[in-house]
Amino acid sequence: MESLLAELRTAVGAAAVLTDTDVTAAYRRDMMPLAPHGTPLAVVLPGSTEQVQAVVRACAAARVPIVPRGAGSGLSGAANAVDGCVVLVTTKMNAIVEVDPDNRLAVVEPGVVNLDLRAAVEKHGLFYPPDPSSYDWCTIGGNLSTNAGGLCCVKYGVTTDSVLGLEVVLADGELLRTGRRTVKGVAGYDLTKLFVGSEGTLGVITRATLALRPLPQAPATLVAAFGTTGAAGAAVSRVVREGVVPSLMEIMDRTAIAAVERYLKTDLAAGAALLLCQSDAGGEAGRRELTAIEQVCRDAGAELVYATEDLAEGRDLLAARRAVLPALELYGAWLTDDVCVPRTKIAELITGCERISAEARLRLAVVGHAGDGNMHPTVVYDATSADEFTRARWAFDRILELGLELGGTITGEHGVGRIKREWLAREIGPVGLRVHRAIKQALDPDNLFNPGSMFTPA
Amino acid sequence: MESLLAELRTAVGAAAVLTDTDVTAAYRRDMMPLAPHGTPLAVVLPGSTEQVQAVVRACAAARVPIVPRGAGSGLSGAANAVDGCVVLVTTKMNAIVEVDPDNRLAVVEPGVVNLDLRAAVEKHGLFYPPDPSSYDWCTIGGNLSTNAGGLCCVKYGVTTDSVLGLEVVLADGELLRTGRRTVKGVAGYDLTKLFVGSEGTLGVITRATLALRPLPQAPATLVAAFGTTGAAGAAVSRVVREGVVPSLMEIMDRTAIAAVERYLKTDLAAGAALLLCQSDAGGEAGRRELTAIEQVCRDAGAELVYATEDLAEGRDLLAARRAVLPALELYGAWLTDDVCVPRTKIAELITGCERISAEARLRLAVVGHAGDGNMHPTVVYDATSADEFTRARWAFDRILELGLELGGTITGEHGVGRIKREWLAREIGPVGLRVHRAIKQALDPDNLFNPGSMFTPA
Repeated sequence: MESLLAELRTAVGAAAVLTDTDVTAAYRRDMMPLAPHGTPLAVVLPGSTEQVQAVVRACAAARVPIVPRGAGSGLSGAANAVDGCVVLVTTKMNAIVEVDPDNRLAVVEPGVVNLDLRAAVEKHGLFYPPDPSSYDWCTIGGNLSTNAGGLCCVKYGVTTDSVLGLEVVLADGELLRTGRRTVKGVAGYDLTKLFVGSEGTLGVITRATLALRPLPQAPATLVAAFGTTGAAGAAVSRVVREGVVPSLMEIMDRTAIAAVERYLKTDLAAGAALLLCQSDAGGEAGRRELTAIEQVCRDAGAELVYATEDLAEGRDLLAARRAVLPALELYGAWLTDDVCVPRTKIAELITGCERISAEARLRLAVVGHAGDGNMHPTVVYDATSADEFTRARWAFDRILELGLELGGTITGEHGVGRIKREWLAREIGPVGLRVHRAIKQALDPDNLFNPGSMFTPA
Repeated sequence: MESLLAELRTAVGAAAVLTDTDVTAAYRRDMMPLAPHGTPLAVVLPGSTEQVQAVVRACAAARVPIVPRGAGSGLSGAANAVDGCVVLVTTKMNAIVEVDPDNRLAVVEPGVVNLDLRAAVEKHGLFYPPDPSSYDWCTIGGNLSTNAGGLCCVKYGVTTDSVLGLEVVLADGELLRTGRRTVKGVAGYDLTKLFVGSEGTLGVITRATLALRPLPQAPATLVAAFGTTGAAGAAVSRVVREGVVPSLMEIMDRTAIAAVERYLKTDLAAGAALLLCQSDAGGEAGRRELTAIEQVCRDAGAELVYATEDLAEGRDLLAARRAVLPALELYGAWLTDDVCVPRTKIAELITGCERISAEARLRLAVVGHAGDGNMHPTVVYDATSADEFTRARWAFDRILELGLELGGTITGEHGVGRIKREWLAREIGPVGLRVHRAIKQALDPDNLFNPGSMFTPA
């Protein structure tokens, strides 16, 4: 392997090849504690597309697998090292190459932090919608690889909806350009959307052309408290049916509410469930949307509804939602799941999670993006107890089972990675799995990229 | 081949297997006069997914290629027969299986006519956005295969943006289910968006789950006339930069205006270019959008700007835009192109087309979806003159060249088919072509589906 290391040093410079295990340990895994991870041969941090190509060619020749990663904020183990691999970190490729306000697009390298892009385009009155919870440290490359979502999705879609084109280094080191700079285009297969969400299994994304939107109006915020989960679920369905598209619609269950109340030392005056909604339509249109949501919540039996156009107050209310995970940390380690169910099934998912919590004898809080049915039931366990870890893992799997039973999917935005591989096979079935393997084989015949993640090769 | 015909009759019933060449002639080609087409062995009209599977298995065993098609409204020759093939027509599979207003989705068979789906969901206060010009007779299956667009795209995107999941019969007759019923989901590769726009080269779509939107407000309409093409182009760029998202923004050049004035016997009071915009935001928000567009047009030097909230008047103005092709027919046969350029390049495209028109010595009208840069320069020629046909074809190709030079794509919404195969290779380059061939090979190793369309196999 010494000759490979020498080649890597030639390719990216000696300082950008890390082999000290004390240093490389930080690049062994992402934020998902359940997923297995190995020890890499080396961690390389290329600074350009050409350097990525050289790294890929060297590893391909040596038959050493490559695990691409960004900041490592993922929650599926898709960026986890396998033993003896090269971890290819894109964080040094962090240039915002271009912002073109007249065509509402940006060209970026993969290492750009989501928040940095948001800030850069905001100066031009523009908006890059995808906003995963880790937006202040996750990178666009990771967002692309996982097709990341966030709070914005109910109105603005997920990452794939904002991508016009990609530059990807393939397994033979060749550079593929997909898509275009225009907002429409149907020349050939939609390779752009095939690579988005492929979790580093098909190539290394080295550049992306992203579609931007006009900056929305300042949001107005509404919070509604419900005495029963069913009432909150009915309100969500009714908002969808009424044709209102809020810019944010989040739900917190009883356990999440209690944790946040304890953490923030506040009284949310909520019983079984809290709905938090925003409209960024602005002015009369925004008021019309919030009034419609308020009426729906009251009709569904909300015990309290409060709406405000005050920005600071809106931020405070949103802070309660964002505090759920830190609040749960006061009880122990958390393991967050990620299922997406039809929007009519949210109440059933929450009550099902209450049953799972009781059976697992573990605290389980449900928080999620109610507007699109993407829920994050989060199990709390004692990380020092092997028994609790086992029960947490059991609960994690039962939640996936419940999601599928309700007509949903095993992952709404976190991805499959190394933690839901068997569940992917279950969701997509043998024909779906065969097609996945055929596409992987077609693009990466030697299984160079992220081997064993998402699915096992043929 | 008699044994194959017998098998097909067993599969779909004798009445659904057409072999009389007088009858099958109607299924030999789509609406693009330039594309080559052959004579099919048979035309089959299956009535169910199971029947499609039986047809695919029979043809695969006999090594007879299959060309899938819907209504045949396409403009790229992607549905054109090759000699000795089986044309698989999906128009009999025209059930709207389900409309679910609470989850804002519909499940349909491929033969449903676009307009019929629009009407069915409108009863529930819902909206299926994709609206190609042929919406009153084209089918959803064809829309999916070509990733069809229309006038709605500037605000609502193209077909792929409205698809949640598909059911596809693969080359071995197996049934693949892609996607889901939820609005978010990242379980595995995005096979749904790979099949959308694949022009029948990877499988036969037999069912689709489509995302619906709330029915928009009644549109307000604005028309602006410009003395120079540059001024109209500047207005489009400025609308984009100002962050206004109209629900429709169409442009007509001098030649298109003159043709429509002659056809409708009206005076559009326009010089070099006409912009037609709508806002469906409703009420104050709609007025705010149109006021912003009006100001932009005046600043850009519009000679006339007229806005109306009157629905009938708006429809009349839109009718002028929709009349361009019939109006051109008064001069001769038309050959419509389909390039998409960055929105800042529209004026350059139009002036470039004026040069091409002069060189080709043929009338050339430019009409298009200015809001997304998707332009349809349309050449008029005498169909009885071989020389004019040759010059029309020459102009068609020069327009594609110009589109690429301006940083655009060779097709914004019509597709590649049998008419732009060489241009696709030019746009995506050798690496892109190799990836296309690898995916085709992975999913359709015997080149069963639509052979020779979009690109030549490896």
